[in-house]
Amino acid sequence: MIKAAKALNIVLKHAKSLGTEKIPLSATLGRVLSENIYSDIAMPPFDRSAMDGFAVNSKDKSKAFEIIEDIPAGKVPKKMIKFGQCARIMTGAMLPKGTDKVIKVEDSEPATKSRGSSTFKEPKVLLSGSLKSNVSKAGEDIKKGQLILKKGTKLRPQEAAMLATVGKTKVKVLRQPRVAVISTGSELVEPNHKPKAGQIRNSNASMLLLQLKRQGIDGQYLGIARDNFVATRKLIQKGLKQADILLLSGGVSVGDYDFVREVLKSCGVKVHFNKVAIKPGKPTVFGTKGKKVVFGLPGNPVAVLVIFELFVVPALDKIVGRRTKDNFTPMKLLKDFKRRDTKREQYYPIKITRGNRDFQSQVPDTFAAPLVFHGSAHMQALTKADGIMQIKNGIKNVKKGAMVNVRPI
Amino acid sequence: MIKAAKALNIVLKHAKSLGTEKIPLSATLGRVLSENIYSDIAMPPFDRSAMDGFAVNSKDKSKAFEIIEDIPAGKVPKKMIKFGQCARIMTGAMLPKGTDKVIKVEDSEPATKSRGSSTFKEPKVLLSGSLKSNVSKAGEDIKKGQLILKKGTKLRPQEAAMLATVGKTKVKVLRQPRVAVISTGSELVEPNHKPKAGQIRNSNASMLLLQLKRQGIDGQYLGIARDNFVATRKLIQKGLKQADILLLSGGVSVGDYDFVREVLKSCGVKVHFNKVAIKPGKPTVFGTKGKKVVFGLPGNPVAVLVIFELFVVPALDKIVGRRTKDNFTPMKLLKDFKRRDTKREQYYPIKITRGNRDFQSQVPDTFAAPLVFHGSAHMQALTKADGIMQIKNGIKNVKKGAMVNVRPI
Repeated sequence: MIKAAKALNIVLKHAKSLGTEKIPLSATLGRVLSENIYSDIAMPPFDRSAMDGFAVNSKDKSKAFEIIEDIPAGKVPKKMIKFGQCARIMTGAMLPKGTDKVIKVEDSEPATKSRGSSTFKEPKVLLSGSLKSNVSKAGEDIKKGQLILKKGTKLRPQEAAMLATVGKTKVKVLRQPRVAVISTGSELVEPNHKPKAGQIRNSNASMLLLQLKRQGIDGQYLGIARDNFVATRKLIQKGLKQADILLLSGGVSVGDYDFVREVLKSCGVKVHFNKVAIKPGKPTVFGTKGKKVVFGLPGNPVAVLVIFELFVVPALDKIVGRRTKDNFTPMKLLKDFKRRDTKREQYYPIKITRGNRDFQSQVPDTFAAPLVFHGSAHMQALTKADGIMQIKNGIKNVKKGAMVNVRPI
Repeated sequence: MIKAAKALNIVLKHAKSLGTEKIPLSATLGRVLSENIYSDIAMPPFDRSAMDGFAVNSKDKSKAFEIIEDIPAGKVPKKMIKFGQCARIMTGAMLPKGTDKVIKVEDSEPATKSRGSSTFKEPKVLLSGSLKSNVSKAGEDIKKGQLILKKGTKLRPQEAAMLATVGKTKVKVLRQPRVAVISTGSELVEPNHKPKAGQIRNSNASMLLLQLKRQGIDGQYLGIARDNFVATRKLIQKGLKQADILLLSGGVSVGDYDFVREVLKSCGVKVHFNKVAIKPGKPTVFGTKGKKVVFGLPGNPVAVLVIFELFVVPALDKIVGRRTKDNFTPMKLLKDFKRRDTKREQYYPIKITRGNRDFQSQVPDTFAAPLVFHGSAHMQALTKADGIMQIKNGIKNVKKGAMVNVRPI
């Protein structure tokens, strides 16, 4: 039995990049760039009006200006603006030659009004307005050829906007693993079946597929392997062939562990550990075959959920190049917590409650309230939980008010 | 011009549930239940072994036990266990009649060893072990007919496990809106084109589609509407026909606002507001047509990102039944922040940095460092940002060390 921290280190050592792939811009959410991105244009590409108004020369002290051109966005101005002249210009449009300033519409007044002319509508305007130029200068945000996104950047909507701006519609990112899910156990029937005596419905596969989805991965479910060598081997072989990561659940506790280990061995998988000092989740198996990674998760659903979050998520993050976040938040324990066995690091379901705002820090106190929990098959408890709190090994009692680390689930 | 809080209230008043739909279990992540779920079975469905070991009667004080049956998971035991007898049992398997306790494999020893018999392997075992029963009693987690998930529950992987356990493979949830995205502006070309003089690439659509994806929605992109009545009207009509929510970007500033408003009016859309005291994002238009909702977002990408997060996300949450979270986190400002115009509530890009651990609270101080920011077209600044900080209207200067509200982006 190895410690949880050591097990995680072993997992991370073997979780390696799967190279790169090119994906469309629309699929980049959460992915990590594997190339530097340079701009093929300046932004703004030209001196650009930041307002709807009238483009003038800032040195021109005239009061009334003749409008000699209309410049909507997207149009290239045709005329040179001289003193006493201006162009009507829209937000985002290119400034005409001879101008360096835009007077807002709100600061203008038709000059014709007072003259009563009806032949021309606004041939001249009276302009006032502040010292602000209301012009975005060419290249003030990005220079042509500038490095705008570095290799290793995690892509969010704003990065997608930048990629679109510079015309990058296919993006090189670290490849996402293909993940296969297999449930093992002769007692299992699929959720659309009514279990007979001695049977239960398979809940781990549905849960694992959603946990994968939360990481941006569409897992492939390969079905239930009955507790026999041939059937299990066949499914594991299939998984190893079509996926980079294989998630097994069940079939790894004391009595049947050797069986699954034998199957994995016969498939060429090297087992790195098979017991972790963690509760729930002790009978967790981790193996590799070349770059392929196999997690033999326990059979009990609470253990599956916990081990996935603590070991599989960091492995996925590392493979796709995301920095693994320490997802724990310190909170105050709402009531005393006691336990007998202190050999393992424990994760226990809690509900988060908020207290009054702490005057000094302005941040309200956050409390972790331990829930009633019957053990690792008691999934119902996790539907009431906001998180799991960590109790390090060696610790027996935690007093009300002490700080505990909580991971949201 | 109305205040940001008032604008949000108007948006939420008009964002209404779109009824329910049945979806497969595999698609439930983040969705909200619109039915109560009752269990059709007890869990565990039978007295179940929590260990691999030997099932015995706890009153039986024998030392050596005859193994009269093997009970793997999924099998219904055939024999009655009497005193002096036991059954070899696996984790998850049904306890045989006459037993109420399981002795772990680790606490057993083959009785044959000492006798040197080679005909039968382990016909008897010597059992020791603790007082623990290692049995999960039928119905200890869930009773048959029990309400296990309430209408209104947000579905996570653990809820999917429960739905699978009770055989719910089709789940009734609040319907997700269909969202259409239209970019407006004659200066725009699609990202796969090289912009000519006066043009820029359309970046808002790519960004909005990823912002929608982050909310679990696959948006439909309808293209660029050139700045003319007929073309714009045609696309808006199409959007109103096929979507529940229409997101327009651009075409809503002073000069062209009337134009888009005229188009919306001619399509039967009622405009509820067209200017919000928010920076960036003043020229934001919000309208409805029956239950259909239209957001006329600004043209500048930073404003689009901000207004989507502040107004569109809460509307989506309300429609699909998720509780809208107040996503702001208080942090200390790292350096003085000054501004001239205090009429609008402002959102300014910042980088989050962490300080030393505060001894009292155990939580490290978190700082917001304002970034260099040229204004609402300066998308590059948002790729360097971790969040946007809120400066309420009326506030001119915020001193270094003061608390500010930050929303991660």
